[in-house]
Parts: sequence; structure tokens; C-alpha cells
Amino acid sequence: MTTFAPAATADDAIRVLDALRNANPLVHCMTNIVVAGFSANVLLAIGASPAMVENAEESAEFVQIADALLINLGTLSPDKVAAMRLAALTAHTSGTPWVLDPVAVGALAYRTRFCTSLLSASPTIIRGNASEILSLAGVTNSAGRGVESTAKSKDALSSASEFARQQETVVAVSGPIDYITDGKLTIEVRNGDPIMTRVTGVGCALGALMAACSAVEPSALIAASAGTTILTVAAEIAVKESRGSGSFAVKLLDALYTLDATAIRNHMHAMS
Amino acid sequence: MTTFAPAATADDAIRVLDALRNANPLVHCMTNIVVAGFSANVLLAIGASPAMVENAEESAEFVQIADALLINLGTLSPDKVAAMRLAALTAHTSGTPWVLDPVAVGALAYRTRFCTSLLSASPTIIRGNASEILSLAGVTNSAGRGVESTAKSKDALSSASEFARQQETVVAVSGPIDYITDGKLTIEVRNGDPIMTRVTGVGCALGALMAACSAVEPSALIAASAGTTILTVAAEIAVKESRGSGSFAVKLLDALYTLDATAIRNHMHAMS
Amino acid sequence: MTTFAPAATADDAIRVLDALRNANPLVHCMTNIVVAGFSANVLLAIGASPAMVENAEESAEFVQIADALLINLGTLSPDKVAAMRLAALTAHTSGTPWVLDPVAVGALAYRTRFCTSLLSASPTIIRGNASEILSLAGVTNSAGRGVESTAKSKDALSSASEFARQQETVVAVSGPIDYITDGKLTIEVRNGDPIMTRVTGVGCALGALMAACSAVEPSALIAASAGTTILTVAAEIAVKESRGSGSFAVKLLDALYTLDATAIRNHMHAMS
Repeated sequence: MTTFAPAATADDAIRVLDALRNANPLVHCMTNIVVAGFSANVLLAIGASPAMVENAEESAEFVQIADALLINLGTLSPDKVAAMRLAALTAHTSGTPWVLDPVAVGALAYRTRFCTSLLSASPTIIRGNASEILSLAGVTNSAGRGVESTAKSKDALSSASEFARQQETVVAVSGPIDYITDGKLTIEVRNGDPIMTRVTGVGCALGALMAACSAVEPSALIAASAGTTILTVAAEIAVKESRGSGSFAVKLLDALYTLDATAIRNHMHAMS
Repeated sequence: MTTFAPAATADDAIRVLDALRNANPLVHCMTNIVVAGFSANVLLAIGASPAMVENAEESAEFVQIADALLINLGTLSPDKVAAMRLAALTAHTSGTPWVLDPVAVGALAYRTRFCTSLLSASPTIIRGNASEILSLAGVTNSAGRGVESTAKSKDALSSASEFARQQETVVAVSGPIDYITDGKLTIEVRNGDPIMTRVTGVGCALGALMAACSAVEPSALIAASAGTTILTVAAEIAVKESRGSGSFAVKLLDALYTLDATAIRNHMHAMS
Repeated sequence: MTTFAPAATADDAIRVLDALRNANPLVHCMTNIVVAGFSANVLLAIGASPAMVENAEESAEFVQIADALLINLGTLSPDKVAAMRLAALTAHTSGTPWVLDPVAVGALAYRTRFCTSLLSASPTIIRGNASEILSLAGVTNSAGRGVESTAKSKDALSSASEFARQQETVVAVSGPIDYITDGKLTIEVRNGDPIMTRVTGVGCALGALMAACSAVEPSALIAASAGTTILTVAAEIAVKESRGSGSFAVKLLDALYTLDATAIRNHMHAMS
């Protein structure tokens, strides 16, 4: 059933990058204490405007001001659950695109139940590692060890595709190769570097970036794949100037800040 | 009614910087999850000691140990509202200087009400962007889009000045030119760089730095303008060695850590 | 009663470092909003896997998945108190090693009571500055000014040793010289640099690193001293390439990421 597209295109990523810098979309981030600062810096580097509003008194109100919403389940709490539920429902009814990042779903019962209940609010994009996606799709009961994937992204692909079709959403499975699927078309992104897994919040920031992209690009499939291309190309640029995980995180922000069409074209990898 | 002073002076900034490094003031920071780490690193770089205590069980007790208090409304929650209220009232009664940073006030009803109620505890300094200050002063109903200003700092000046006079406080309006006013005198700071808006928490860290300055400088007008000078001069030094927003944030901390009288004198901009 | 060992050995640190990289232990971190990101990056740089789970719905469940637990009392709240209590008790009954970092204990009554109550769950290692350790041991009533020590680590040593013996735990007193004691043997670590106190979270990250080490090293005394050696040797490497506190933090992560046996041997300081 799944048709592979000829990989993510440089043109899409370049067009979305330009749109981000022109429109400067306001991204309502409901995320975790570990990565909030880094996610904000990724969004600012690429031209978007992050704002973190996480309480139930304000989250629904803010979704209506924002251009896109991110819900990331790291460092969850009952207070955040209430705020996120309101925000997701408001995004759904107001047509605000929103990204669900099911951090550690499958490993922990409380968040797995909550995350499953959020599906009724129709996330625009669901981004996670293979273990998280398999758990949310109901294929497995365990998402490995917390935030790390114990499954491979390719193995999750057919389940992810079926899940995307059922939920009428786009599912992005992060890994050495990233797969983005709406259940009909699947786009591969073959950029990136293993050091991305040695800096906290790179995956979480990708979810935030996809939210920003979905504010400027009507196709969720293209928004998610362009966001993935932008981040992974910047990572390839950054790693060449890095001497470890500390400088990589700094250079990644610099690379996003200075990213242009030429850099994207030069780093796009052909499908093997 | 407002008299312009001949811009912030290098002498004031140098004197306050020396005092910070000698006195090593303990700054009680009640701030948000996005910028807590960066704010702490700014304070440590400049010689102050940050401590984040945010719960209602401890906030009043800790204000009495601290030399200054920062209340920043980012990532607000009902629990934090209770803790901040106690801290502000305790600071007021104990004479501890405190800085109010009204993040996103105007954009969201809950925090706008809360922030307005905090004014009765007589903040020493109120620091925000033009939209936030205009909203808190009751001039407009909307503080733009979350944390970003949609108004210009100069346009906010007469309202800010009137507001400062009414509240008997010092109001600092951050922007390309920073205005610091007590309603009688207004000081301009013309340093800084646009990249400061592309790193999360630079404005929030300025609030924290003003709190530290107010612990060592009895004039709130001078404390706020010296803090602004210190941060913006360091930013000008940092941007010259930066290749994007990631390295700028790192170099800003380095510049604060190594800042001295010569650097401040060399970078002070004359009023145009 | 206390016997000094001939300082921490390079062999222990090298063996623990290898074990971290091979075993990739999952460290359940319950820590504060200021340092969560930096602590995660320290763990990732050294080969461990951090995961922050802080709510009472999930903390006990996650301890049973994790290889070690860190409880750090910074930015405490009643919700976190409940979650930490469950996690500590579960770690105790399940035999999961866990590290207690008593941030600002002594300075604030609420956390001092809570921290004292946690001792019944038998922490594997207690890591703090001299003021915090003296307060927790009941020797003094005040832990200085928040997170800063007003006592010297050497002065705390005999109390720390007695406390370790009573509690049947290992106590690590951080300072210019680090002392790690189980009440019988005391190990000194004479590495490090004063700039470590000018970056937020270096001490907190050391607690996280000790938790990781205790997952791969059965002797808590060796786990704590090896963790201290690893971090302080990396700090000595980093400071040589730094131009201030900003670049130091970045280079510290790079140094941890690239640390090897040769670097550890070259930087170990002999006891004076």
C-alpha cells in the first residue's frame, strides 16, 4: 500500500525554510524541563518564535494566538496533562496544526493512557522514535528504556504507515534514517549524524521544528520531512566543526542560524 | 515632565560591576523552565549567586536570606502564583529589592490579572518589552504575540514614564534602544545587537541581572541602567566572535565573565 | 577511625568509564529545572542514558526500569516531594542504587525535613557541599546561602565520616578537594578548577554522574570517587581551552565525550 516518494527534496526544505524566516510563526510549546531552552533556541535560530505556556488557565487561550502547537510528553505531570488536553482540543477545533511527541510512551502506563486519549484531538504530526511509535500504535507494550528506542526505525515503518492511515495523520519515525509517512506516501530522510543522539533534546527540538513548519506549509507530510531535512542537514554541517557533544550543540544552532539553499542542496543525500 | 539624562554612564556600570564581584549577592530567582539555566549562568558569570526557589513552602523564607528577588512570569502555574505572591509580599515588607518581569502580560488574561495584583508589593524595577509594559500600564490590552513585542520601545516611553511615576518604581523598556525611567529621569542605553533576540532568555537574564545590581546599588534607576549596560556591552563583544546564535550565547557568558572597565568604556555609545 | 586511602586511583576511574560506555546505564533523574538539560548532556557525553521522570504517577514504575536513580532537591515542590518519596522507597526495596543531592538543605526548613526523612530509604551515595552535608548530619542548622557552601570541605570531613558510618552510606563532600567517605575509608580527589563553581549545575551533574557510576560499579565508594575523578579531570582539560564560563561549559562536555585512559592518567594529582 505504501509508495515511497523519491526521498525528501531540497526544494521543499528550501521553500519551508524561506517561509519560516518570512512568516516568523509563533509556536506554542508545551514541552519538558530538560529541553525547553534548547528547543526555544532551535526555533529562534531558524526564524520561528517559541513561547512556552503550560498551565490549564492559559493553554487554550494561547493556542488561539499561536500559529502551531507542540505537545511533548517529557516531564509530564497531572497539571500539564490537564493543560495539554485543553490545548490539544482547542487546536483541533480551531484548526491550529499541532505536533504530538510521545516521549517514553509505552514504557510508562500513565503517559501511554494519556497519549492515546490525545489521539482523538487529531494531531497533525506524530513524531517519535521507533519504540514510541510502535507502542502508541498498539503493536508493542514497551517503548524500550525511557527516551531511547530499542526498536529500529525501518522495522516500525509498516506499523507506522498503517497507524498513520488509521489516524489520518502523519507519522515521523526518527532514527538513522528518518521515515515520514501519511500511510500512502512515505518520505525518507537520510541525513544526520549519530552524535545527534548524544545531545539531549535534538529529537524534541525536531518536534518543535515540525510544529513551526506546519504553520507555514499546508502539507503535513512536507512540513515534517522539510523540518527533518533542515535539522539533519544542519547537524551534518555542525558535526564537521565539533570536537564533541558540547560544541556540536552550539554549532548546530549556528548552522541552523546560517542555513541557506546552497547548504541544503549540497548536503541532501540521494536514496540508496 | 521627563528629563533625559545624558545616557547611561560607563562609570555607573563599572562601579556596579565591581560591587557585584565584591559582594557576590545572592539572587532569589523565580523564573521559568526555558531560561532558568541560562539566567543562572549569566549571574554566575558576572559574580552573583543565583538560587531558584519556587514553592510556596519556601519562597517567603528564602527571600529573607537572599539579597534580591526576581519574579519572572514565564511558564507560570497556580503553584508558582502562590509562591510568587508570598515572595513578593515578603520582599516588600523586608525591604529586599525585587524585579518584576511581566513575560507575555497582556496576551493572556490569567497572568495579566496576577501581574497587576503584584504591583501592590511595590517592585523595585519592572523590566519588559514595550508591549508588556504598555499592557501592564493599562494602555493596551494585548502584548503582541507571547514573548515578542509588537510595539516599539520609544512609543512606549511616555506611558512607561507615567506608569513609573504612578507606581513609584523604575520601569525598563527593552528594545533596540533601552529606556530606563523613574518617571522623572529617563536613561537611554544604546548598546546591544539584534542577535540578542535570537537567543532565548537574554531579556529574562537581564531581569535577573537587574535584581543582582539592585542588591548592590541603592538607586534602582542606576541599578537597572548599569545592568542593561553590562549585558549589552558584553553582547557587542560576544557578537564579534560569534558565527550564529549558538556561539553568541556561549561568547556572551565569556564576555560577562571577563568584562572589565576598559571594555565598558570602549563600547559605550554616545547619544545620537 | 578514618583511614585515608592513597587518593582516588586512575585505574578505578578508567575501569568505571569503560563500564559506563559499554553498559550505557539508564539513569532516572529527578532533578531541578535549572540543571536538567546540562545534567542530561553530561550523562550522554559520558555514555549513560538520562531520563527525567518526576511525577508521582510514574516515578516508582520508572525506578524499576532504570539502572540508577538521582534525587536532587533543587526547585523542590510538594508534587515532586511525593514523587521522590515513592521513587526512593522503590529504589530501596528493589535494590536500585540511588544518589541523594541535598541542595540547599539546612537553609530551608521544608526541604531539610523532607531530606532527613529520605535517609530511611538508604541512599547509596549522598553528595553535597560541606554546608549541606553538615546540616544533613545535624551538626549545623544552616547550609549557608542557598546552593553555596559557607563551610569548607575539610572541616566537614570528620562529621561526614561519622554520618556515613551511622547511615551506612557513602558521603561525598564536594569542594576544592573532594572527600568521599564510607566512614571507614576516605578517598581524596584533588582534581578540578575553581571555574567549576561559575557554571550552574556542575555539582548537580556530578550527582547524576555518580548515579550512573553506581549502576556499573558495586562499590559505592569507588563509584563516587571515580565519578568525581572523571568530572574533575575533564574540567581540567576543558579549562585550558576556555575563555570564560560559557566556553568552559561547552568544553567540559567535549572533554567528557572524548575522555580516555591516557587523559585520566595524565591529569591525576598525587596527594600532597
